[in-house]
Amino acid sequence: MDSNTVVENIYLLVVVTLVSVLQNAFFAQKVERESHTHTPCTDRVSCANRNCMDAYPTFLAVMWCAGLCLSQAPAAFAGIIYLLVRQKYFVGYLGQTSQSTPGYLFGKRIIFFLFMMCVVGIFNHLLWRYYGSDYKEYVQTITSAASTLLLIP
Amino acid sequence: MDSNTVVENIYLLVVVTLVSVLQNAFFAQKVERESHTHTPCTDRVSCANRNCMDAYPTFLAVMWCAGLCLSQAPAAFAGIIYLLVRQKYFVGYLGQTSQSTPGYLFGKRIIFFLFMMCVVGIFNHLLWRYYGSDYKEYVQTITSAASTLLLIP
Amino acid sequence: MDSNTVVENIYLLVVVTLVSVLQNAFFAQKVERESHTHTPCTDRVSCANRNCMDAYPTFLAVMWCAGLCLSQAPAAFAGIIYLLVRQKYFVGYLGQTSQSTPGYLFGKRIIFFLFMMCVVGIFNHLLWRYYGSDYKEYVQTITSAASTLLLIP
Repeated sequence: MDSNTVVENIYLLVVVTLVSVLQNAFFAQKVERESHTHTPCTDRVSCANRNCMDAYPTFLAVMWCAGLCLSQAPAAFAGIIYLLVRQKYFVGYLGQTSQSTPGYLFGKRIIFFLFMMCVVGIFNHLLWRYYGSDYKEYVQTITSAASTLLLIP
Repeated sequence: MDSNTVVENIYLLVVVTLVSVLQNAFFAQKVERESHTHTPCTDRVSCANRNCMDAYPTFLAVMWCAGLCLSQAPAAFAGIIYLLVRQKYFVGYLGQTSQSTPGYLFGKRIIFFLFMMCVVGIFNHLLWRYYGSDYKEYVQTITSAASTLLLIP
Repeated sequence: MDSNTVVENIYLLVVVTLVSVLQNAFFAQKVERESHTHTPCTDRVSCANRNCMDAYPTFLAVMWCAGLCLSQAPAAFAGIIYLLVRQKYFVGYLGQTSQSTPGYLFGKRIIFFLFMMCVVGIFNHLLWRYYGSDYKEYVQTITSAASTLLLIP
């Protein structure tokens, strides 16, 4: 029963993690296939993959912290949006060679949102600990509402 | 006492994580040593290391999710097998230069197994949540049995 | 209330993770800015960044395991020290081109300390499980005292 409580609090995060793993596998397949052909595209694919992989642990860490500290639904929602942005970034990177490639960074806004969720969660926890006032429910409602703002392109 | 319950549910996963950290340190030592000598081997070592490191966060995330959502023993067992495969991959990568190197991906089967464990765990949790039927024990037994199939080369 | 207990046990770790995310963002900004200018510095920046990013999942995994298995305060303290060392390493890497660059590895001592914390935590858990003797409080006190040794350069 206790184990079910644990799963209850994280299952949305697990789902997003699984989707991100699928996406990683898709990227890796691309790199794998290109590494056999040795077209000029290879560098772009492996570079896009490396940029995505560089940011991956950071993303996972922030998403899980946000989900554990505050509330899992908005964190998982932001995670899904991040994965969409990453997909667009990867595909955009493979675009026409003449075209300039996107920069090193992507999804800054979403990482920032998740970061703020963590900060608010910790701040709220300290408030509860030292003053006994718990605004968690209000904060969770506001966060859920604010997460829809991420949909604005 | 509560803290001991937490550790009880994750200690096998922690052990596998520690072994993987030792392995990372071994890989890093190799890269470190080669970077001083500047033999032609350097590229192969650093490439093997990079491929291993690219897959590392994915592996950790899937293993921990599988361990938390379903059952830690089969997840830790699959993790150990993955580390063996990775060791073999790394050593194989450093083999004779004439030989073709292994591809970018490795341990696909084990990642897939851990992935399915997560999916089954989440599905089982949703069943329990909406229908009240808990097949966790059966699923755990089946998973433990199925994990031995990973030993087949 | 249960959720607050969870946050209580991890909030220092979350703070360190957030600081590390900020540092990653700082590194990424450096890489991003350099990739526009294409100075000879670019290779050094991206190499320093890659070395830091290679070690990042290992660091996060060990820190969280140490924090969960034994005690969060020394783990978070060691994490902060690690981030300082990493900052120094990154800045040192960008130093004068004539100067030899630091090696591939850094912060070995801190990773080793966190590793030992995990081992002690697991060992203590097994003692508690099979012999019923719980030395956790003593071990935590010793660990807190030992963590100050990390301050010695």
